[in-house]
Amino acid sequence: MAGNIFGTAFRITTFGESHGPAIGVVIDGCPAGLFVDEAFIQSELDRRRPGQSAIVTQRKEEDKVQVLSGVFESRSTGMPIALLIYNADARSQDYSHIADKFRPSHADYTFSAKYGLRDYRGGGRSSARETAARVAAGAVAKMLLKEQGIQIRAYVSQVGDIVLEKPYPELNLDLTETNPVRCPDPDTARRMEELIRAVRKDGDTIGGVLSAVIAGVPAGWGEPVFDKFHADLGKAILSINACKGFEYGSGFAGVAMRGSAHNDAFHTDAGHIKTRTNHSGGIQGGISNGMDIYFRAAFKPVATIVQAQESVNEGGETVTVEGKGRHDPCVLPRAVPIAEAMAALVLADHCLRARGARM
Amino acid sequence: MAGNIFGTAFRITTFGESHGPAIGVVIDGCPAGLFVDEAFIQSELDRRRPGQSAIVTQRKEEDKVQVLSGVFESRSTGMPIALLIYNADARSQDYSHIADKFRPSHADYTFSAKYGLRDYRGGGRSSARETAARVAAGAVAKMLLKEQGIQIRAYVSQVGDIVLEKPYPELNLDLTETNPVRCPDPDTARRMEELIRAVRKDGDTIGGVLSAVIAGVPAGWGEPVFDKFHADLGKAILSINACKGFEYGSGFAGVAMRGSAHNDAFHTDAGHIKTRTNHSGGIQGGISNGMDIYFRAAFKPVATIVQAQESVNEGGETVTVEGKGRHDPCVLPRAVPIAEAMAALVLADHCLRARGARM
Amino acid sequence: MAGNIFGTAFRITTFGESHGPAIGVVIDGCPAGLFVDEAFIQSELDRRRPGQSAIVTQRKEEDKVQVLSGVFESRSTGMPIALLIYNADARSQDYSHIADKFRPSHADYTFSAKYGLRDYRGGGRSSARETAARVAAGAVAKMLLKEQGIQIRAYVSQVGDIVLEKPYPELNLDLTETNPVRCPDPDTARRMEELIRAVRKDGDTIGGVLSAVIAGVPAGWGEPVFDKFHADLGKAILSINACKGFEYGSGFAGVAMRGSAHNDAFHTDAGHIKTRTNHSGGIQGGISNGMDIYFRAAFKPVATIVQAQESVNEGGETVTVEGKGRHDPCVLPRAVPIAEAMAALVLADHCLRARGARM
Amino acid sequence: MAGNIFGTAFRITTFGESHGPAIGVVIDGCPAGLFVDEAFIQSELDRRRPGQSAIVTQRKEEDKVQVLSGVFESRSTGMPIALLIYNADARSQDYSHIADKFRPSHADYTFSAKYGLRDYRGGGRSSARETAARVAAGAVAKMLLKEQGIQIRAYVSQVGDIVLEKPYPELNLDLTETNPVRCPDPDTARRMEELIRAVRKDGDTIGGVLSAVIAGVPAGWGEPVFDKFHADLGKAILSINACKGFEYGSGFAGVAMRGSAHNDAFHTDAGHIKTRTNHSGGIQGGISNGMDIYFRAAFKPVATIVQAQESVNEGGETVTVEGKGRHDPCVLPRAVPIAEAMAALVLADHCLRARGARM
Repeated sequence: MAGNIFGTAFRITTFGESHGPAIGVVIDGCPAGLFVDEAFIQSELDRRRPGQSAIVTQRKEEDKVQVLSGVFESRSTGMPIALLIYNADARSQDYSHIADKFRPSHADYTFSAKYGLRDYRGGGRSSARETAARVAAGAVAKMLLKEQGIQIRAYVSQVGDIVLEKPYPELNLDLTETNPVRCPDPDTARRMEELIRAVRKDGDTIGGVLSAVIAGVPAGWGEPVFDKFHADLGKAILSINACKGFEYGSGFAGVAMRGSAHNDAFHTDAGHIKTRTNHSGGIQGGISNGMDIYFRAAFKPVATIVQAQESVNEGGETVTVEGKGRHDPCVLPRAVPIAEAMAALVLADHCLRARGARM
Repeated sequence: MAGNIFGTAFRITTFGESHGPAIGVVIDGCPAGLFVDEAFIQSELDRRRPGQSAIVTQRKEEDKVQVLSGVFESRSTGMPIALLIYNADARSQDYSHIADKFRPSHADYTFSAKYGLRDYRGGGRSSARETAARVAAGAVAKMLLKEQGIQIRAYVSQVGDIVLEKPYPELNLDLTETNPVRCPDPDTARRMEELIRAVRKDGDTIGGVLSAVIAGVPAGWGEPVFDKFHADLGKAILSINACKGFEYGSGFAGVAMRGSAHNDAFHTDAGHIKTRTNHSGGIQGGISNGMDIYFRAAFKPVATIVQAQESVNEGGETVTVEGKGRHDPCVLPRAVPIAEAMAALVLADHCLRARGARM
Repeated sequence: MAGNIFGTAFRITTFGESHGPAIGVVIDGCPAGLFVDEAFIQSELDRRRPGQSAIVTQRKEEDKVQVLSGVFESRSTGMPIALLIYNADARSQDYSHIADKFRPSHADYTFSAKYGLRDYRGGGRSSARETAARVAAGAVAKMLLKEQGIQIRAYVSQVGDIVLEKPYPELNLDLTETNPVRCPDPDTARRMEELIRAVRKDGDTIGGVLSAVIAGVPAGWGEPVFDKFHADLGKAILSINACKGFEYGSGFAGVAMRGSAHNDAFHTDAGHIKTRTNHSGGIQGGISNGMDIYFRAAFKPVATIVQAQESVNEGGETVTVEGKGRHDPCVLPRAVPIAEAMAALVLADHCLRARGARM
Repeated sequence: MAGNIFGTAFRITTFGESHGPAIGVVIDGCPAGLFVDEAFIQSELDRRRPGQSAIVTQRKEEDKVQVLSGVFESRSTGMPIALLIYNADARSQDYSHIADKFRPSHADYTFSAKYGLRDYRGGGRSSARETAARVAAGAVAKMLLKEQGIQIRAYVSQVGDIVLEKPYPELNLDLTETNPVRCPDPDTARRMEELIRAVRKDGDTIGGVLSAVIAGVPAGWGEPVFDKFHADLGKAILSINACKGFEYGSGFAGVAMRGSAHNDAFHTDAGHIKTRTNHSGGIQGGISNGMDIYFRAAFKPVATIVQAQESVNEGGETVTVEGKGRHDPCVLPRAVPIAEAMAALVLADHCLRARGARM
């Protein structure tokens, strides 16, 4: 009901506020016998961590994860896996000046309208800090998927008006992690980084687009009606802070095509059924067809800016809001591990759900 | 698990295949005391019905709805509301020729891969016929929302490369239902209709974009983490057959903006807190802020075409598939009531869920 | 939320009132490839049907089931299976005299208090007629379980103060269906039947106890914490109209035992791990251990009696209620197929859930 | 799916093993604005804590609770409330001798059969230690219920063959906490305590019965079909370790009554509709009627005994198991706060669910 639980068979419950004692996640439904590598969970958190480069927020958080349950002698036991991350650098004093003010395009006003009160410190639970729990859980999902040869790779394909035009098959995705922007094209990455630096210098922020490719998913995952594979993926990605759009396969661009050009012809390749093109984005009728799954997601410019802005307070009076908190000038670089984690959670869920398809 | 249930508090279960005896839906969680107007449910089904104009499929279905339970003396009783629609024009002979063939970009192959067998008649449950159940349930949701002054209006804003450039505040949405395309701009509608006719003449199909506006939602609906209002809306819309993308508010276009331009300044207007711009699309932090909610959705060209296509059969052998079934040359006109229904279901769900927010 | 959905992986949604047009059920999550024998579904409904003997209600209902979806060429397709039963003998006039009166120990008052209105015809949805949908769905679950060698057998072990003292291993359960009471001991059955006849002659009703044995469940079904096998069974059985208690294994009688006597010693028998005694009732730590599962359930005397009773009406005024509807003098005989159906639904659910236990 | 989540609107997720680092719970769905008294949560844990008296297990656990999220300035914020309890006295060496042995009537064998591996230290998650998380969450539920004048009181009514015959209206429930057995009748309590001491001296264990009364529930809580109030209560109680039976209202004893004697006549008392008797146990048709709700639950003798027992090991070989762990000779005294907590969770859930009943 309150929406802090995600998934059906591989199900997570997250908790924690930006400036509370800790954030964390409980995974319910991870099958027993999975090798759980705590170092890998930590490495995924390190990819999302603030302060990892000059173009992300400088909040100091080590994000050290503790495994509290569900793992015995490095194997999952089938019991809930609880992962805990204590908040270290929670400077509550940073936020007292906005305790009764609504920051534009943040969740301050809507939280007050809904709950009648709110934990205003650092945005409370509406802070992107909440996504650390997603990344920790996603790391476990990734380990489960890896055993089946599935690989999820996200990257930044647009920052502001700088667009990486090449489709993913023409890119070397191994280069994604070689630059702080997480764009696999070094030249474009450099230009994106420059833009982010310039924007930050202006006390401003900028949006962008994230692309992702999932390879190795067998045909048959996803449910045919409401829980279509791409519908669940879409929800997962849209639930990430600042996400404003999701498209998969041919997406918005494909609408101008005719069916005769858009349809993906089947053929047999070395005994496997494949399609000659992949406008379907690896999903047909909501179910994976064995081809690569790929999608794009739009992220708005971060709402926290240094510039003074007009707003109102709890009493409806006009006030000026000035940004003081540490924040990202552009969420895209850090959105990469988060989007991968959310995709991994959806995949792990449908992996288990698919076990119920046949007698 | 199998994904034929949608919603949390206002929850529907749908069933039925294209060429089975009937399709239907059970609504669980409709509060008692709602006035249920069966004629309105029927009128919504009529908007989705095949054969309603020259540019949609000519399958003959009256889609006459029966209310089997949950309504007594025109009021909902709090018990499940079951709505049943018998299939009338289910010509199974039309489909025998593709019983063992996989139609390109349909769900034939993925169903076989997942289930090991499939009801091939008219696409079985992967047929868009399934959406009649959504529209019937959505009509009940609309009645619930209407009592709270909420109005959902979708329209066609793009067919192929014909784009209605005007944003919704500049349109007269009362004109949407005055033409078979369901585009509120008569001139654009005419050009769209011509394109659809031309495409159909070629035995081909074409995609498009649907836009929607929801007015009257109070601040405070939607949940802040996974079940963000727009994430649930996105999933709902993406679960509609042929949908390939979803964006809300500033969407993909907004990513090139800077935060200083994108942020929606709060001000007080006649005692109500409002925003001067609405790039947020009426949702902040996943929760409605009282402004209009608006979104766009991409629909691919229908996969069923008259032209012969290369494919494979169950045995992996190369075959030719020729379209013979009745189908839509463009799903957009009929997608309008379906998208409204899905949006209504999400809204009704979050309307009830919001009752749990405070002591 | 509104509780007309049951189960997690094998999930049913039921609908329908006693005197509405129809009742029915949608099964979501039945795996594809199950042979579905419609005649068997009908035969299970016939076991529950009113009018089948002289000691049950004489309402005339054929309870003819229609399969509306999810089955193609006698096999389940993985799509929702909708089963519909039209109400035939719904004499609404029988109930107008109690439209504003609260029958003692019925759900009339609580429905009014909860919903503000109610369908008073024949008890509406609180009527035991609702259980026909459970039996229909349970029949599908039984078919799924039968393929795995599982057999569920319930019988009547007490009516009023007539108690069948023998434990199930000393009984011939093949005799259960040979008498209208459904007690496997012919002599006890005869005495029970006489008691029921006598009670009915007095215009009164009587309660009893149902026992059940489930054979063939492999070790490993059930979840270890909240969804313990017996907890889910208990909920399922307690949700049947008139049920007041549930116990499994040693139950209430076992509390006076010492642990040294109650513990079930393990041993190996022909390569299989078994227990020498079975006070555990086939379930340890909420998970099946491969031994027989057995339980007992208490059913109160039916609330509908012919005698005049004191009560109040909607306005709180004192009134006299006189029973006129057709009703069962004792629910136990008809509770047998219903309890079996509910047990089958729990088993089918945990059968599918167990697929997620290991990598 | 894996069953570590309980509830629908007020929903908890628990985690943790007996000898892992910590156990805990996340509450999702607690409305904002509830005053959260951490001292009360701690006091409830103290009631369940091991080592509190001479007749319970002597494991040393302070069970100090930490509130990690969801509470700001002593008020719930509507965000998930995470409660954490570190394990202090987890002597893993105690259990190495049974690592590959199946203790009789424990969950050792069933866990191995289900998961293929298990955390054998102290029973892992099958340990009653898991219930501390339930009690912590239940304390929050109790605070929510207290604001509505609802009081839940459980007590021990039977230990072995010592039975407290008086029904609850004849007891002074304020005396329950005055003795270590938690029986409100001092004389009976003394005899029960003596029996427990004698049993422990024999290295044995003994079962018993718990009774509970819930006062102050308004009419209209509970759902009419599968989620009947008593069905959800029954599942909740049956999910507690060692519970073998549940009955409410007249229970098993009521089956011998006739309907004319069992029916609870309605009358009006000072403007309120009440019943003259309460065989219904405060619930009719699955919905509360405003009268006291009362139930009884059977608990078997604890499986851990000091005496040597025959069993088998993972390889199926015959072995002898000797009890060495610290354990309770009788679970009843500590079951009292646990059962109250589970009842509170069900009540809080249905309290919130009832908000959806009417327009």
